[in-house]
Amino acid sequence: MSAIIRDLAHLAHIEMYTPKLDESARFFTEIMGMYVSAAIGDSIYLRAYDDYEHHSLKLTANKHAGIGHFAWRTQSPAALERREEALSKTKYAVGWHDGDLGHGPSYQFRYPSGHLAELYFETHKFKASGDSVSALKNTASKFPARGINVRRIDHLNLLAPDIRAFRDFQLHYIGGNLSESIVDNLEDMNPQAVWFQVNSKSYDLAVTADHLGLNGRFHHLTYAVNSREEVLIAADICLENGIFIETGPHKHAIQQTFFLYVYEPGGNRIEIANTTARLILDPDVETVYWTLEERKKGQAWGLATVPSFHTRGTPMPEEL
Amino acid sequence: MSAIIRDLAHLAHIEMYTPKLDESARFFTEIMGMYVSAAIGDSIYLRAYDDYEHHSLKLTANKHAGIGHFAWRTQSPAALERREEALSKTKYAVGWHDGDLGHGPSYQFRYPSGHLAELYFETHKFKASGDSVSALKNTASKFPARGINVRRIDHLNLLAPDIRAFRDFQLHYIGGNLSESIVDNLEDMNPQAVWFQVNSKSYDLAVTADHLGLNGRFHHLTYAVNSREEVLIAADICLENGIFIETGPHKHAIQQTFFLYVYEPGGNRIEIANTTARLILDPDVETVYWTLEERKKGQAWGLATVPSFHTRGTPMPEEL
Amino acid sequence: MSAIIRDLAHLAHIEMYTPKLDESARFFTEIMGMYVSAAIGDSIYLRAYDDYEHHSLKLTANKHAGIGHFAWRTQSPAALERREEALSKTKYAVGWHDGDLGHGPSYQFRYPSGHLAELYFETHKFKASGDSVSALKNTASKFPARGINVRRIDHLNLLAPDIRAFRDFQLHYIGGNLSESIVDNLEDMNPQAVWFQVNSKSYDLAVTADHLGLNGRFHHLTYAVNSREEVLIAADICLENGIFIETGPHKHAIQQTFFLYVYEPGGNRIEIANTTARLILDPDVETVYWTLEERKKGQAWGLATVPSFHTRGTPMPEEL
Amino acid sequence: MSAIIRDLAHLAHIEMYTPKLDESARFFTEIMGMYVSAAIGDSIYLRAYDDYEHHSLKLTANKHAGIGHFAWRTQSPAALERREEALSKTKYAVGWHDGDLGHGPSYQFRYPSGHLAELYFETHKFKASGDSVSALKNTASKFPARGINVRRIDHLNLLAPDIRAFRDFQLHYIGGNLSESIVDNLEDMNPQAVWFQVNSKSYDLAVTADHLGLNGRFHHLTYAVNSREEVLIAADICLENGIFIETGPHKHAIQQTFFLYVYEPGGNRIEIANTTARLILDPDVETVYWTLEERKKGQAWGLATVPSFHTRGTPMPEEL
Repeated sequence: MSAIIRDLAHLAHIEMYTPKLDESARFFTEIMGMYVSAAIGDSIYLRAYDDYEHHSLKLTANKHAGIGHFAWRTQSPAALERREEALSKTKYAVGWHDGDLGHGPSYQFRYPSGHLAELYFETHKFKASGDSVSALKNTASKFPARGINVRRIDHLNLLAPDIRAFRDFQLHYIGGNLSESIVDNLEDMNPQAVWFQVNSKSYDLAVTADHLGLNGRFHHLTYAVNSREEVLIAADICLENGIFIETGPHKHAIQQTFFLYVYEPGGNRIEIANTTARLILDPDVETVYWTLEERKKGQAWGLATVPSFHTRGTPMPEEL
Repeated sequence: MSAIIRDLAHLAHIEMYTPKLDESARFFTEIMGMYVSAAIGDSIYLRAYDDYEHHSLKLTANKHAGIGHFAWRTQSPAALERREEALSKTKYAVGWHDGDLGHGPSYQFRYPSGHLAELYFETHKFKASGDSVSALKNTASKFPARGINVRRIDHLNLLAPDIRAFRDFQLHYIGGNLSESIVDNLEDMNPQAVWFQVNSKSYDLAVTADHLGLNGRFHHLTYAVNSREEVLIAADICLENGIFIETGPHKHAIQQTFFLYVYEPGGNRIEIANTTARLILDPDVETVYWTLEERKKGQAWGLATVPSFHTRGTPMPEEL
Repeated sequence: MSAIIRDLAHLAHIEMYTPKLDESARFFTEIMGMYVSAAIGDSIYLRAYDDYEHHSLKLTANKHAGIGHFAWRTQSPAALERREEALSKTKYAVGWHDGDLGHGPSYQFRYPSGHLAELYFETHKFKASGDSVSALKNTASKFPARGINVRRIDHLNLLAPDIRAFRDFQLHYIGGNLSESIVDNLEDMNPQAVWFQVNSKSYDLAVTADHLGLNGRFHHLTYAVNSREEVLIAADICLENGIFIETGPHKHAIQQTFFLYVYEPGGNRIEIANTTARLILDPDVETVYWTLEERKKGQAWGLATVPSFHTRGTPMPEEL
Repeated sequence: MSAIIRDLAHLAHIEMYTPKLDESARFFTEIMGMYVSAAIGDSIYLRAYDDYEHHSLKLTANKHAGIGHFAWRTQSPAALERREEALSKTKYAVGWHDGDLGHGPSYQFRYPSGHLAELYFETHKFKASGDSVSALKNTASKFPARGINVRRIDHLNLLAPDIRAFRDFQLHYIGGNLSESIVDNLEDMNPQAVWFQVNSKSYDLAVTADHLGLNGRFHHLTYAVNSREEVLIAADICLENGIFIETGPHKHAIQQTFFLYVYEPGGNRIEIANTTARLILDPDVETVYWTLEERKKGQAWGLATVPSFHTRGTPMPEEL
């Protein structure tokens, strides 16, 4: 294996499509406890209380749910240049984009799965003012005390028809370490799902096989809360407010994330999660492989994975 | 010791005086996460989301902070009659009162410390409707997902100049068990503070020596949250919203309550607490005595008690 | 409905049968974190660290799993006499028993379902000594810091072929309040499961229809931990130690208990639970009824009830 | 400011001196819940259950408490070479060391404060076997279910007479980002304490002014637990086992760590901590500065810092 590319700082934001912009926005503000940074045209920009950038979520009105694009922030301007140089030689390159509200120029590209993504370094860091200033100056903005109080964007999970192609592209052109992976078996090692680590968190991006073989679909976006107790409280809040709970709270065997999966009103799957004190600090950690046989055991404590978790992505084909 | 009087069901409500009615009401709704049941004249009636009665707190505008009165609900109509009969022969009896919003006729009396209290059985149970209905029909109303989300009234702490007189009056005329007590030493056994248990909770009422020797003062009112984690979150919410934190979060040695003490805008001390799984189910449990010497060790994990906890009660003499 | 009989203080102990006495004892000490009080003949007596009596669990070697008997402690000697008087006129009375290790004379009887039970008041309260003394004198013994650290016995769940008969017997002869119940539907109101409250906890005994129509079977015994976080930790401890997790952690819609169900090595189902700050303090609370239709929704957050939860009781017929 | 040196992966281990080797070892195994990896001569090597290396703590018998040395693991062999090259030109270089149990060759140096440290890349990753294998293959070893169950080494806090000298040396020769700092005031910016971030955790090393002006002293070593609830449980475990609690549990304003400080039997200060979901992912985050004036506010929720926290380091001068 060639050396790990360490040019990415973290998952920065995603543009989420929703057929119900107002209801989705209400979910992310009232239920998730996020703040609106801006609303322009068909898009609403949001951030969690300790997201340091202008936004981690851009909601865009669209006829069906799904993902518009997502972004990585690089470690430095030089890191951005290195990625541009590597990508520019490939058919995946889209090219420079002027930047959106909240960040500077971005270099865009498409993953083998068709997902549009971008890389940038220049960013407009959020400066709290007035009522949004936290009493603790090492917090980006005030703890909202509203709904689920998510702290920060955590990770994105995509669906892709060819996991091997996605994995190799990510590791060779974009960066990060393959921290965990599902393979069919330990002889053939055909990847079914992959988790990419780009900082001390054990993953910022996960990609799972699209059972329908479609390109460009979205599985879920995850925000982190401060404790597992808050994931439990989140479940009550969703129950009380008619937000559909797909599965959880429970603990993943893979990556050990304590999770709750719900559907926001636009139809996209959202995860509220806490990973306890688990981090990967080992710079040459070995990938943990799970076989399909092992996955039959279900989640960490034995919960069977609900079928919709394997079949539902946005958009659903019937919506297209 | 004569038999324990088991006629009380629980602490029902308190009338809290505040010189800043609107600000106090905002604290209890926005910060504590309580619901307004009614607002009539100079009073606002509030309840926590799982309080089953019309209100557990009546805020009344007054030139200084403090307590107007408080109420016990009895186990039955017969229990109420027994208490009336016992009290009516004493100088402490005030007599029947028509009842307030939310409950039926009450029998009023004054404690030896001058505190006005009442006993009643008939009550108007809260019936949630519309947006306040919980998804779980064994919850009195919807989890608010706002502020501290206190669940139910827990206990009241008064100041009194003569603890022995209060204790004997409570045990002989009103009811309950003396679960814990501070005494000067184990020879003289002069009580400095007392905790009364009337159900499986280890106390519903505590009374502490008033260092100024005044009658009728209030020390604190406590609401329960579902976990110690929520007490910690409450501390952040108070910090973020400029609510003065007097002490905590920490664990009391006495009664083991995990506590946070803050001042509501009117000046009264409010506690947010969780008692974990601790209950007293033993029907003939012995009183636990703590000496002043033992109290010097501070709270359970060694936190020194802040001086204001010993000296501040409402009203403060300078406000009178 | 006639008046509620308030003669019971709490569920006191159960005698659990196990075909693997040593392994079961190791589970309750090493995994659950309980203390051994005594071991005599084929029985081992255990208590949780804050159980105030000599034992809350008596493990007895037996060819199959199940329940030997269980006990209620009464509120007073007079309460015991009242129960004896009521029971002695029925065919359910067994009569006085000399008492077992840890408690005085008990009045024994059989429920309509054949379960042997007893009532007593005199008890030998546990006095910690040496290394088992807690640093807090309001705790029965030292926090074990071993395994799951269960705090106290919480409740017992039996199976019975005729729920109506069990319910009526309990309410008319033994005592308590029917806090919640599953009925087939709101017209016929045929009870399928019942929960009895005898103190401020919302239940100490639950009884569920035995789908096999058998007498005398056991469903589960529950110990309480101090937080939901500890229930989650308990799940990890069971996972790490090869203890079979049947279902959970999750939250019951009925009674709102946050639960984890596992099988101890002898085959009996054990629950580790936390009920947050929920108590029933209302002395004339109305029973909450759930229909079979409502139960199809699964647990509070939507988890489907695992089939074995409906079918498995101890002993299993094939073991008899 | 010159570019951040990103050659360090994480704090790897510390060698702690103790005058009571056996008692200290018992504290780390029984109370902290750590595993012994090896015991050779006067040293015992320990690791937390999810530390991936051979050890994170080497206890060495010594006439007084304090620190022997500590180690950084580098990101790569090349990173180690870069650090060697930079250091070798300075008077701080000590030179190559053959390596200790558990890791390969290390490059040793002394900080301006006299603290001996080393850098290495080659390491012997812990391979669990037998009873120490976790049921989850992404955990280094089995959750111990014993005592405080610390998960992994978190950070080290040293005392130094010249904070500016230490800070500049660390940033120019060793690496990391200055995430937070206490300065006397915002005009003079004389550093009083510094926190260095080398991965996504907000710090792996903190250095505080030694009020006695001594070289080479130790302030505390921190292990992380999975939740704040476990920090609270840790406090009870220390209370129950006679471990002196210096202060906490409480939340630091600086870095927001939820902390508990205790003294291990050898006299060294140990912290048990949880940082919730807080991480620093921003690659060009600005240092957060706190003035001495601001520090007077105490910890996040207002707890006054105990005087011993400012005065006690190991060794204490009277022990030398």
